[in-house]
Amino acid sequence: MSRQDQKQKKVTLLDVAKHADVSRATASLVVRKSPLVGAETRQRVEAAMRELGYVYNMGAARLRAERSHTIGVVVPNLTNPFFAELLSGMEASVDAAGLVMIIANTGDGPPRQAIVLQRLREHGVDGIILCPAAGTTDEIASQIEGWKLPLVQVLRHVTDELDYAGADYVAGMEEAVEYLVSLGHRAISFAAHGPVHSAYQERVQGFLGAMKRFGLRPEPVIRFPDRVDQIAQEADALFVKDRAPTAVICFNDLVAHGLAAGFYDRGLKIGRDISLIGFDDVADAEAMRPRLTSVSTAPNEIGQKAAALLLDRIAQPALPPRRWINPTRLHIRDSCRPLSSS
Amino acid sequence: MSRQDQKQKKVTLLDVAKHADVSRATASLVVRKSPLVGAETRQRVEAAMRELGYVYNMGAARLRAERSHTIGVVVPNLTNPFFAELLSGMEASVDAAGLVMIIANTGDGPPRQAIVLQRLREHGVDGIILCPAAGTTDEIASQIEGWKLPLVQVLRHVTDELDYAGADYVAGMEEAVEYLVSLGHRAISFAAHGPVHSAYQERVQGFLGAMKRFGLRPEPVIRFPDRVDQIAQEADALFVKDRAPTAVICFNDLVAHGLAAGFYDRGLKIGRDISLIGFDDVADAEAMRPRLTSVSTAPNEIGQKAAALLLDRIAQPALPPRRWINPTRLHIRDSCRPLSSS
Repeated sequence: MSRQDQKQKKVTLLDVAKHADVSRATASLVVRKSPLVGAETRQRVEAAMRELGYVYNMGAARLRAERSHTIGVVVPNLTNPFFAELLSGMEASVDAAGLVMIIANTGDGPPRQAIVLQRLREHGVDGIILCPAAGTTDEIASQIEGWKLPLVQVLRHVTDELDYAGADYVAGMEEAVEYLVSLGHRAISFAAHGPVHSAYQERVQGFLGAMKRFGLRPEPVIRFPDRVDQIAQEADALFVKDRAPTAVICFNDLVAHGLAAGFYDRGLKIGRDISLIGFDDVADAEAMRPRLTSVSTAPNEIGQKAAALLLDRIAQPALPPRRWINPTRLHIRDSCRPLSSS
Repeated sequence: MSRQDQKQKKVTLLDVAKHADVSRATASLVVRKSPLVGAETRQRVEAAMRELGYVYNMGAARLRAERSHTIGVVVPNLTNPFFAELLSGMEASVDAAGLVMIIANTGDGPPRQAIVLQRLREHGVDGIILCPAAGTTDEIASQIEGWKLPLVQVLRHVTDELDYAGADYVAGMEEAVEYLVSLGHRAISFAAHGPVHSAYQERVQGFLGAMKRFGLRPEPVIRFPDRVDQIAQEADALFVKDRAPTAVICFNDLVAHGLAAGFYDRGLKIGRDISLIGFDDVADAEAMRPRLTSVSTAPNEIGQKAAALLLDRIAQPALPPRRWINPTRLHIRDSCRPLSSS
């Protein structure tokens, strides 16, 4: 058959079945990813599909089978490397289950999130992993229930009626404060940025709670811009008026990265002149100099667990809502030093 | 109507039309995003859709209308912040055109890319922006032609038969070499990582060509691991045997970031002991200390242009293939110094 002929003739499932030497019914089972087909037969049919260029019309098929073998993942942004690590973990689990993952970005705004969710629903994804945009309300639970669409919240939660995979942000911040106190620090500031959501509130709560427990007056939570280069420019905000922190705990590693650059510009040596703790422990923490002490939230693991929760939810829609909170761990490197007694 | 009733009753397009006080035909035009409907009417119908929770069954509709108003974007990885900036540029253009973007990751492998492309096709995306995985051959052109699916190559190209948006990697590397030579450097190494593809080859070609033009013996291209923390550990690879570069040009800013950490560990001061140039000029380049001199490829602009090419291609499928090559610009900051004559 010439290439021209191949293009014009539409390959049918029967063609695939003949090519693979199986019945049409068996080929159909393979196409619908039925577990009733043995691995060897599956491989032969899939090879025939590839060789003949067979296209499974998923749009039409979904109207029958209601499965697209695609997971939608909705994130608020992609610029924080944290999300790349989270998505990498999800993809490993989704991929192992034979599904494909498609990602959409909300820019952390509910209006755009509404459009994105609607579009993913229209595309017939089997389920969604959602990091709710800041400002999302618990009304989303009844909306999703009405849609009959399996959905797992990740990193942030707005309702107890839907599954959730996240990290113990409160305990992580407590551990950071405890560590600095054990090194003799008492003037400890909290450097934050970005919109307010559950993961933000839990971090602030963990910080303030621990400071209070140690009888320390926390410096106010200081807000920085979104971008790492802008954070560097505004590092002075930590030292205005009567504030003189000897240590700074950051909302995430991105803030720590920006402040580290700002400290460099001001001739402040991290470790010697000021101690710095990040949060999330992304790969960049290990690449900073001095290496950044950071609270590990293990984004890759959270991603894996969120995917596992969603796969369970798809298989068993009636399960009660589940919560999985990853314990955090302080990863001590070189950015904090004991406060010398003066 | 009680909430329970709302859930059980399926909202029809006629319900929406009545609620918005328009004809069913007008409501249908809004749903199909027809330009024939005025803005005020459109808004009223869309508000009614939201209020009633109307779902447009895109799977069924696509079989009629062949438009999903969704663009698929296929990238080899998400861990390099370069891709976040590229996607941000695309999203701005795609969003402005009233479309939604969904992203899929190939892990830079052709088998996974084949699955992802097939899945996006099955979901009926209107078009695809593809950064071809390393190892993709020009056979993809005839495959895509057979699919009748608008597709634009971005960053890397494997065929002249499809549109392409990228940067002038050759000229960018030439400019980096010229700058270092103007500072008196002669022993200049090239630090690379990742798989080989057109954008890799063009960078190497630009470097080697410029070195030859200046009568300089280039150090061999030195290969580093993927991850920034691993690059730091292997920075010594630049200085083995008779190699003693006074300046290093990096394949991208991620390599530069890793080497900067490695130089710190070895007590080498960037600028004083060794000059360093990155490539891409992502936001991290501005946040490095000393600030990284880097060749700007303007990923945000490339993303915008790739989206514009795709929108044109969707509107006019018969256009001849187009190429858009973004000029690069050396962004001089603080990581290079004149070589002191000895």
